[in-house]
Amino acid sequence: MDQDRHERLVGFRRDLHRYPEPAWCEFYTTSRVVEEVERIGVDRLRLGPEILDGDARMALPDESVLAEWHERAREAGAREDVLDACAGGYTGALATIERGEGPTVALRVDIDALPITESEGVTHAPADAGFRSANEGYMHACGHDAHATIGIGVLEAVAESDFSGTFHVLFQPAEEVIGGAKAVVESGVLDDVDRLLAVHIGLDHPTGEIVAGVGGFLAVRQFEATFSGESAHAGGHPAQGRDAVQALATAVQNLHAIRRHGEGDTRINTGVVEGGTATNIVPESARIEGEVRGETTHLKEYMSERADTVVEHAAKMHDCESSVETTAEAPSAESDAELADVVYAAAGETTGVDSRLRSAELGGSEDATYLMDRVQRRGGLATFVGVGTDHPGGHHTPTFDVDERSLAIGIETLADAITRLD
Amino acid sequence: MDQDRHERLVGFRRDLHRYPEPAWCEFYTTSRVVEEVERIGVDRLRLGPEILDGDARMALPDESVLAEWHERAREAGAREDVLDACAGGYTGALATIERGEGPTVALRVDIDALPITESEGVTHAPADAGFRSANEGYMHACGHDAHATIGIGVLEAVAESDFSGTFHVLFQPAEEVIGGAKAVVESGVLDDVDRLLAVHIGLDHPTGEIVAGVGGFLAVRQFEATFSGESAHAGGHPAQGRDAVQALATAVQNLHAIRRHGEGDTRINTGVVEGGTATNIVPESARIEGEVRGETTHLKEYMSERADTVVEHAAKMHDCESSVETTAEAPSAESDAELADVVYAAAGETTGVDSRLRSAELGGSEDATYLMDRVQRRGGLATFVGVGTDHPGGHHTPTFDVDERSLAIGIETLADAITRLD
Amino acid sequence: MDQDRHERLVGFRRDLHRYPEPAWCEFYTTSRVVEEVERIGVDRLRLGPEILDGDARMALPDESVLAEWHERAREAGAREDVLDACAGGYTGALATIERGEGPTVALRVDIDALPITESEGVTHAPADAGFRSANEGYMHACGHDAHATIGIGVLEAVAESDFSGTFHVLFQPAEEVIGGAKAVVESGVLDDVDRLLAVHIGLDHPTGEIVAGVGGFLAVRQFEATFSGESAHAGGHPAQGRDAVQALATAVQNLHAIRRHGEGDTRINTGVVEGGTATNIVPESARIEGEVRGETTHLKEYMSERADTVVEHAAKMHDCESSVETTAEAPSAESDAELADVVYAAAGETTGVDSRLRSAELGGSEDATYLMDRVQRRGGLATFVGVGTDHPGGHHTPTFDVDERSLAIGIETLADAITRLD
Amino acid sequence: MDQDRHERLVGFRRDLHRYPEPAWCEFYTTSRVVEEVERIGVDRLRLGPEILDGDARMALPDESVLAEWHERAREAGAREDVLDACAGGYTGALATIERGEGPTVALRVDIDALPITESEGVTHAPADAGFRSANEGYMHACGHDAHATIGIGVLEAVAESDFSGTFHVLFQPAEEVIGGAKAVVESGVLDDVDRLLAVHIGLDHPTGEIVAGVGGFLAVRQFEATFSGESAHAGGHPAQGRDAVQALATAVQNLHAIRRHGEGDTRINTGVVEGGTATNIVPESARIEGEVRGETTHLKEYMSERADTVVEHAAKMHDCESSVETTAEAPSAESDAELADVVYAAAGETTGVDSRLRSAELGGSEDATYLMDRVQRRGGLATFVGVGTDHPGGHHTPTFDVDERSLAIGIETLADAITRLD
Repeated sequence: MDQDRHERLVGFRRDLHRYPEPAWCEFYTTSRVVEEVERIGVDRLRLGPEILDGDARMALPDESVLAEWHERAREAGAREDVLDACAGGYTGALATIERGEGPTVALRVDIDALPITESEGVTHAPADAGFRSANEGYMHACGHDAHATIGIGVLEAVAESDFSGTFHVLFQPAEEVIGGAKAVVESGVLDDVDRLLAVHIGLDHPTGEIVAGVGGFLAVRQFEATFSGESAHAGGHPAQGRDAVQALATAVQNLHAIRRHGEGDTRINTGVVEGGTATNIVPESARIEGEVRGETTHLKEYMSERADTVVEHAAKMHDCESSVETTAEAPSAESDAELADVVYAAAGETTGVDSRLRSAELGGSEDATYLMDRVQRRGGLATFVGVGTDHPGGHHTPTFDVDERSLAIGIETLADAITRLD
Repeated sequence: MDQDRHERLVGFRRDLHRYPEPAWCEFYTTSRVVEEVERIGVDRLRLGPEILDGDARMALPDESVLAEWHERAREAGAREDVLDACAGGYTGALATIERGEGPTVALRVDIDALPITESEGVTHAPADAGFRSANEGYMHACGHDAHATIGIGVLEAVAESDFSGTFHVLFQPAEEVIGGAKAVVESGVLDDVDRLLAVHIGLDHPTGEIVAGVGGFLAVRQFEATFSGESAHAGGHPAQGRDAVQALATAVQNLHAIRRHGEGDTRINTGVVEGGTATNIVPESARIEGEVRGETTHLKEYMSERADTVVEHAAKMHDCESSVETTAEAPSAESDAELADVVYAAAGETTGVDSRLRSAELGGSEDATYLMDRVQRRGGLATFVGVGTDHPGGHHTPTFDVDERSLAIGIETLADAITRLD
Repeated sequence: MDQDRHERLVGFRRDLHRYPEPAWCEFYTTSRVVEEVERIGVDRLRLGPEILDGDARMALPDESVLAEWHERAREAGAREDVLDACAGGYTGALATIERGEGPTVALRVDIDALPITESEGVTHAPADAGFRSANEGYMHACGHDAHATIGIGVLEAVAESDFSGTFHVLFQPAEEVIGGAKAVVESGVLDDVDRLLAVHIGLDHPTGEIVAGVGGFLAVRQFEATFSGESAHAGGHPAQGRDAVQALATAVQNLHAIRRHGEGDTRINTGVVEGGTATNIVPESARIEGEVRGETTHLKEYMSERADTVVEHAAKMHDCESSVETTAEAPSAESDAELADVVYAAAGETTGVDSRLRSAELGGSEDATYLMDRVQRRGGLATFVGVGTDHPGGHHTPTFDVDERSLAIGIETLADAITRLD
Repeated sequence: MDQDRHERLVGFRRDLHRYPEPAWCEFYTTSRVVEEVERIGVDRLRLGPEILDGDARMALPDESVLAEWHERAREAGAREDVLDACAGGYTGALATIERGEGPTVALRVDIDALPITESEGVTHAPADAGFRSANEGYMHACGHDAHATIGIGVLEAVAESDFSGTFHVLFQPAEEVIGGAKAVVESGVLDDVDRLLAVHIGLDHPTGEIVAGVGGFLAVRQFEATFSGESAHAGGHPAQGRDAVQALATAVQNLHAIRRHGEGDTRINTGVVEGGTATNIVPESARIEGEVRGETTHLKEYMSERADTVVEHAAKMHDCESSVETTAEAPSAESDAELADVVYAAAGETTGVDSRLRSAELGGSEDATYLMDRVQRRGGLATFVGVGTDHPGGHHTPTFDVDERSLAIGIETLADAITRLD
C-alpha cells in the first residue's frame, strides 16, 4: 500500500477512534463511512433503514439516549442527510460493487464502541498522539475503528481490482451488544451471499499473523434480570420491606456458582448491577445485566436455564418478584476450511505477514455468527478472519490500542482473497 | 385556629408537597419559607450561609445536582435573592423573635424530601386533589412539608402571644441524609438555647395523639463502600478480571448476616448498589450506599466495625480493593422528661387532642439528636415531640400522606407549650 | 447452711459435673438424684415414665445414642433399678412432700448438659480440682449441675421446715434441647400447681445477687432443614449433580440475612451443618440444625416463616428438594410480679445476698416457659428466679463454671420463699 | 476365554464387589488378590510395606478407622498373614513374572471403593443377584472390583503366554483419594518400567469399545479447609460468638463462584462439609473437604490459589481463623500414541471388540498420572486404556454397575498387547 493511502486510512481510523459511539448510536461513524464510500464510488449504498429489520434490533437503547448521541454526532460534524436517515437507531451501511458475472461476496466489519473510559496514560498512544476519545466514558476498546477502516480499505482495493461478481461491504452496527447482526440477517439483504468474510483485529495474535479461519465462538445469551420488592423505612420498619437488593446479591453469588459442565466451557458475567434509591430505604427494585455463554448452543442453554432458576428463587427467597428478559443472543459457529484456505493462500502473498494459522479458537462471542449461520444454511461458505495486531492492553480494557501497521496487512490479505474467489 | 389561617397553612403545605426537594437542594422550599416568615415579620431571619458550618455538611450532592435543583427551583418560581443566598447547597433558614427577658427557646423542623416516586392512585389524596409531586421521582414521603408548615404556624402563634424571651424556629435542611443538623450545631447558632423542641408528625400515632417526649432514637452511621477491581472481556479472558460486582454481592449478603446483638436492636441496610459498565465486561468498580444503626452508640459501633470488616474481606476475597467512607452519623438520644411534661400539659388543653403519651420509642434515627445532644451538654433541656396523624401508607413509601387536621393540633400544642416556658 | 451440708451439696454438684449427660440421656444424673431424694425421704418419688408424656418428648436422640449413654451411666455406677426405669429416654424425677392443707408449690430445676468440650486450662476450677468432665465432649456449661443441687438442697430445707401444703421438686430432663418441659406439661402431673418457681444460676448476675422475677424469655423454634440433591462425579460430570451443599450454603447465608424486625429482638443460629460424603462426589444430601427466636411469639413466627422460605428456595435454586421439621419449640413468658415479690422479700433475709432485683430480662430461651404458661393459664402464678454467680466463662462456653457459694444463697432464698407461700 | 475361567473371574469380581473397602483399608481385597496370585503362581509377590513409601501415602485415615476395617476384613475371612503385613494402611500388592530378556512392562489396576450407599433397587444387578455391598455405606461405584479382576486375568494370561521380559501387575490402593500412586512412585519399585499400561473400565464407553490411549486427565488438588471461631450462647450473646459456619457458607458460595478461566476447563467441589455442635450454640469450628481441578497444571494452580484466598477471607470476614491443607494432588497427563497403537492393534484382534478409538478425553482425574509421569520422565512410554462397559448408573452413583462381558474383552486386549511389546 502506498504511503499516501496508508496515511489517509490511519487518519480515518484515528477520526473514528476520537468519536467512539455505542451500539445503535453510530451516527457520526456512519456519516464518516458514507463520506469515504462516496469518495471511492460504489454502485449502491444503503443506510440503516434499508438494511435492518427494525423489530429485530436487539438491545436498542432508550429514545433519549439515541437522541443524545444523535445530537452529539451533529456537533462533531456528521452530515445532516445521514443523520436524518439513521435517526432512531438505524445506523450502519451496506456498500455494494456490481461487476457482472461472478460470486456474491460480502465482507462484514463492525463499527460500534464500548462504555469504557479510555486511558490518559502517556504510554497510551491515542492519548499521546491526541486522538484519545472525545466522548468521555466511551472508547474503541475492541478495534472496531480499525475494522471500519479495513472495510473502507478493502472496498477501495476491490473497486480498483479486476474482481468480477458482486461485492458487499457491510458496516454493521451494534456488535458489542450482540444486537446488530440479527437485524441485518432478518432484513434479507445478505440472502444472496455465496461467500462471507468477517474480520477481527487482535485477539491476542501479534502484528504480522493472520488466522484464516477463526472458530470456537461461544454461543451467548445476554439478559436483564429485574427484581421487584417493596420499600420500607430501614430504621423503623425493616421487616416490612421486601429487599430487592438482597435478592440481587443472592442471585449474583449463585449465578457465578452455577456448576461447571463436563462437556465444555461455559461463562457467566453479571456486568451491570443496580438497585435501590436511598441509603435509608429498603430497596424495592434492582436489576442485573448479565450474560451466559457456552462452547456449544447446548451448553449456553444449560447456563441459561440454570440462570433463570437462580434468579427466580433468589427473588422468591426474599419475597420479591422477578423476570428475566433476553436482550441478545447468538449461536456458536465454525469457519469453513475451504474458504479459509483461500485467505490462508492470500496471506502467504501479503507483505508483512510472517505467520499464518489455518485456524484458531476465539473463546468469545460475536454476532457475526448470525451472518455466518445464515450464509452456511443457504449453501454458502463463511470464514472469520483474524488479523493480528500488537495490542498493549487487552480487548475491552482502557489501554487497548492497535498497531496501525496491521491495517494494510489486513486490507491486502482480504482484498487479495476476495479477488481469488470464483 | 380560625378557618382562614388553617386554609392558608394547608395551602402552604400543599405547595411544598408539590415541590419536594432532596437534601441540600431545598431552594424552592427555603424561598417559600422566607416569604411566609416575612409575611409574619420577625426580628431576625438568617439563611443557610449564616447558620451552617459549610465543611460540616454531610452527604452533600455533586455540584451538578445542586445546580440542577437550583435551576428547577427558579422555574418553579423561587425568589432570586433567596436562590442567590442558598447557592451551592446552603439551604434552610433560622427565624428569630426577640422579646426581652426570658428563656431562649428553639423549635426545630426539617424541610427536605425523599427520592421516592409518589403514588398516582386515586385513593392517594395528593394525586386526587392535584398536589402530587411535580418533581417526578421525589416525594414528601416523611411529612417534612407538614413540619415546615408547623414551623410557620408556631412562629406566627408565638409572635402573636405574650411570650417573653428569645424564640428561634430552625427550618433545617438535609435531615433525610442525616446531614444537616451537625452543620447547624457546628455553626454555633444554637449554642444559647435553653429549651429545644423538635417535632415529627405521624410515626404510627393517629390524629389526635401527642407524644410529649419521643425517645429511643437509634444511633446511625451511613456509609459508602466502594470496590475496585479490574475489567476484562467476560467471554475471552474472564479470569483476567477482578470482579467488583462479585465483591459487592458477597458484601451485601454478609452485611445483612452480621450477627444480631444480645444487648439490643441493630439495623443494616444496603440502600443503593451499583456496579459495572457493560454486559460483557467483568465489572471493575461497584459501590454500596448503606447504613447501620444501633439502639445505643455502642451497638451502632459494633455494627459499624463488623460492616467495615465485611467490606474489606469481601473485596480481598475477589482480589479487589475497597474503602468505606462515613457519609453521615448521628448519636442516640433521649428526651428530657421535665420539658416533655410541659408539652404534655399543653396537649391537655389543645382542641382535637384525645390521647397523650408522656413518652414513646421511635425505633428510627433522626439527626435532631445532634441538636438535642448539644443543648443537653450545655445544660439545657430538649424534647422530641410526636404529633400523631393518620397516614395511609408508611413513612418512606409512595402512599404516605398526612391528615391535615393534625397541623392545627401540632401548632397549638407546641405554641402553648412554648409560651409556658420560663 | 452448716458447713457439713454445704460440703455434701458441693460434693454432689461436683459429681454431677464430672458426669455430664446430654438431653434425654440423664441416666446417671437421675440415679444420683434418686439417691439424694431417698436419703432425705419424701412422700412420693416418680421417675420419667410417670411424669413424661412419651410422645411429647421433643428432640429425642436415636436409640443407639440412648443405649450408649445408658451403658455409660452403668459404668459410672448408676443404680440398676433407676436405669431400668429410665430406659429409652425416660429420664428425670419428681419428688413430692405432702404436708396437709396449703398451696401446691413446685420448684423446677433442669439437669442436662451440653455437647461442649470442657476447658483443660489450669485456671478452670473443675480441671484444677479434678472434677472436669469425664464424658469427653460433653460439659455442664450452663450450670444445670448446680440447678440439680439447688433442687436437692431446697427439698431438704423444705422437708425440715414447717411448710404446710404440697411441695414438688421437678428434676426436668432435656432443657438444652427445649425438649423436656412440654412432655412434663402434657403428662398432667403439674396441673394442680398453684405456685411455680423455676431457677437459673448465673445469667451474668454476680454471686450475691438475686433476680426475683426474670422475664423477657425469647420464644424459640428449633428446626432441622434437610436438602436432597443428586450425586455425580465432580471431575467428569459436575453438571449432572444437584449439589445439596451449595443449597445449604445459600440457605445459611440467607438465614442469617433475614431482615431484623422493627418490633423487637430476633435471633437466628445455624448451630450444626453437615453434608456430602467424599471430596470428589457432588454432595447429594445436607442438613442444618438451626433455631430462630423472637422477643414475642409473633416475632418468632416471623423468623420461622422467613426461615422456611429461605430453605425452600435455596434448595430449588440448586434443583434440590428440601424439608424443614420443627424439633423443639417454646413460647415467650413473663414472671408474675406478685410471686416474685415473695422471692424478693425472702432474698432480703438471706445471708450473702447483697443485691436484689425485682426483675431482669433474660434475652434467651427456656422451656420453663411451657410450665409457666400452663400454670398461669390454669390460674396459678409463676416466677423464674435468677441466682447470681460469678462465672469466668460465658454460658455455653468451655470455661463456664459456677461460684459454689451461690448454691447456699439460692437454696436459702428459695426455701424461705416457699415456706412464706400460702 | 473359556467359560470356566470366565465364571471364576466373575465370581472373584462379585466377591470383591460384596466387600468394598475405602482407600488404605483394602485389607480383605488385598487378601483375596494374594490368594488368586498364589493360585496362578508368580516369581515375586510384594505387599504394601514393600511397595509403598509410608510417608508419601496421602489422605490416610485415622488409626481407628484403619483398625475398624482391619477387623472387618478379618470377619469377612481375610488371611491373617496378609492382615498382619498390611496393618496400618499398607495395602495393595505387586505381582511380578520374570521371563528372561525383554522389556519391563507394568499393568496398573486400582482396588479401592467409595463411601456411597449402594442401590437396593430390583433393577440393580448386584442387589438382584445377591452380591450387593455387605459394607453398608460403601460401594464399588467406580468399577475397581472389575479392575482388580482384570489385573488377575491379565496376570494369568501373560503367565500362560510366551511373553519374554519382566511383567508387573500393580494392585494399587487408594486411588479414589488420589493418595496411593505417589506412595508407589516414591518407593521406587516401578523405576525400571519401560512400558506402563493403566486401565479403567466404563467412562461412558459401551461394552465392546476400547480406547487405546485416554488423555485429558485433569490435574487435581484435594484440600481440607478448617475454620475456627468462638462459641457463644446463640440466644443470649449471639454477637460474642465468631461463627465458623457462617465462614464456611461464605467460602462454599465463593469457591463455586471462582471465575471460569479462558484457557480451559476447571472444576471445584465442596464434597464434605461439617460444622458446629448444637442448635443453640454459635458454631466454633467447621471444615470443608474439597477439590479443585484444571485441564492443565497451571489451571489447577489458578483454582488452588483462588480457593486459598476465598477461604482466608471468608474466615476473616467472620473474625475466624482458617487453614487449608492439601490432602492429595495429581498432575495432568497424556498417553503416548506409540504405546497406544499397540493396544489399538491388539483390540482389533479381540473377540467382542466392535469399536476402537485411538484416543479420548477423560475429563476427570486419576492418580495413575503420577505413575505415567514417572515412567515418561525416565524415558519409558505409558498409556491409559479404556475398556468400555455398559453401565446403568454413572460412575460414583448408587446404581453404577459393570457389564461383566467386558472383563474378558479387557483381559484379552491387554494380555495380547503386552505380549506384542518388545
